[in-house]
Amino acid sequence: MGAITRAAPDVRSAVAAAQVVVVCAPVGAIVEQVRQIAQQCPPGTLITDAGSTKAEIVAAIEQLERQKSWPAGVTFVGAHPLAGNDKRGPQHADASLFAGRLVVITPTASTSAQAVRQATDFWQSLGAITREMSPDEHDRALAMTSHLPHLIAACVAGATPAEFLPLTASGWQDSTRIAGGDPAMWRQIMLANREHLLTAFDGFSGNLEAWRRALESADGPALEHLLAEAKRVRDSANGPAGPAS
Amino acid sequence: MGAITRAAPDVRSAVAAAQVVVVCAPVGAIVEQVRQIAQQCPPGTLITDAGSTKAEIVAAIEQLERQKSWPAGVTFVGAHPLAGNDKRGPQHADASLFAGRLVVITPTASTSAQAVRQATDFWQSLGAITREMSPDEHDRALAMTSHLPHLIAACVAGATPAEFLPLTASGWQDSTRIAGGDPAMWRQIMLANREHLLTAFDGFSGNLEAWRRALESADGPALEHLLAEAKRVRDSANGPAGPAS
Repeated sequence: MGAITRAAPDVRSAVAAAQVVVVCAPVGAIVEQVRQIAQQCPPGTLITDAGSTKAEIVAAIEQLERQKSWPAGVTFVGAHPLAGNDKRGPQHADASLFAGRLVVITPTASTSAQAVRQATDFWQSLGAITREMSPDEHDRALAMTSHLPHLIAACVAGATPAEFLPLTASGWQDSTRIAGGDPAMWRQIMLANREHLLTAFDGFSGNLEAWRRALESADGPALEHLLAEAKRVRDSANGPAGPAS
Repeated sequence: MGAITRAAPDVRSAVAAAQVVVVCAPVGAIVEQVRQIAQQCPPGTLITDAGSTKAEIVAAIEQLERQKSWPAGVTFVGAHPLAGNDKRGPQHADASLFAGRLVVITPTASTSAQAVRQATDFWQSLGAITREMSPDEHDRALAMTSHLPHLIAACVAGATPAEFLPLTASGWQDSTRIAGGDPAMWRQIMLANREHLLTAFDGFSGNLEAWRRALESADGPALEHLLAEAKRVRDSANGPAGPAS
């Protein structure tokens, strides 16, 4: 398809002259790939990633960096581009995927300012807007804004009897779209961010209880209040404080 | 905007020469509008509607039809076009809104075959695919495929802290889109279909418990099984048995 400009037969020849290496792999595979790649990089190389969770990955790589086998001058800065969809494969590639989208960069106390600047420049060169957060802050927020919605969408899809599928319309289609994502990949994300996801789950369950009470007692004003509050949050996400697309 | 071909100052002049009257109003207002309109219709007029719930509306109108004040020769057939979105107003009108979309027609034992045929012809003339179901069957299915997804999407939106909104991406946006719908309208839908919605809620809650157990016990295979099952259902909704758009 002409999607690959230059292929390499192995990691060594792929990264021998690299300035920046971006590891795009399921979250469960990133640490081992970074370890292997770092061994082959020239000093000065920046390694970054695109994983949906950060705390576990960044901690494991900082552990590697403290070992003797980590090459001098090679640095890692975690990143998570909030872009993409449920499709896979080069036929779904989009050159403007990152334009105006947020990329979270997750340095720690031991990350050099130069490495952060290099990572920031790289993602901004693709048109992205960058924001620094700690790995844990990132995971706590994304549990609520990405991992929980995925779990809930999958739960709605899974709870829909097959005989009713012809009676779905755009509401069901939109609200369950992300449930079409890759199960093996999402299993890794959910396990890697399990504690924050359980906390987000509790917040959702508490809110769900309020819905159930309002519905059970046929409490119209309470239902409308919950609906109006949800609409307020949803509409504000489209405003200036919301995502770029 | 040129959206209205002919306006009328009152119901009487609007329906005096009508063959078909379509009542498009929030579900809580449909019965009373049908009652008023029926008084003014010439014999032979078909009245249909576009309400998202059917059992309560159809039962109330059949009650009216049994009263002396209901005019002879005027018939009502309930309908629900599975089309539309969360936007309101003529600027969001779409001439092909019903093309290839399903319209459920909900006759009862007392609806004449001629009235069903007339309603079917009307909706099909707009490009819709029609399907007959009893009002109760319709409400049971739609509780699962429309009303529950709306409640859940609103619950996800409402549970998202404002500070995290800039960290939402297309997953959150898609899965909460319907939460932007009109609160007063959705309050009426949820109350009108309260019992089936509570049953659908229970099905969802049972499924949610399985997710919670898998996550709490960090059970990777169980999580992947739930994710794969959700993906199977989601993907099959795009297949030949799924909705037309």
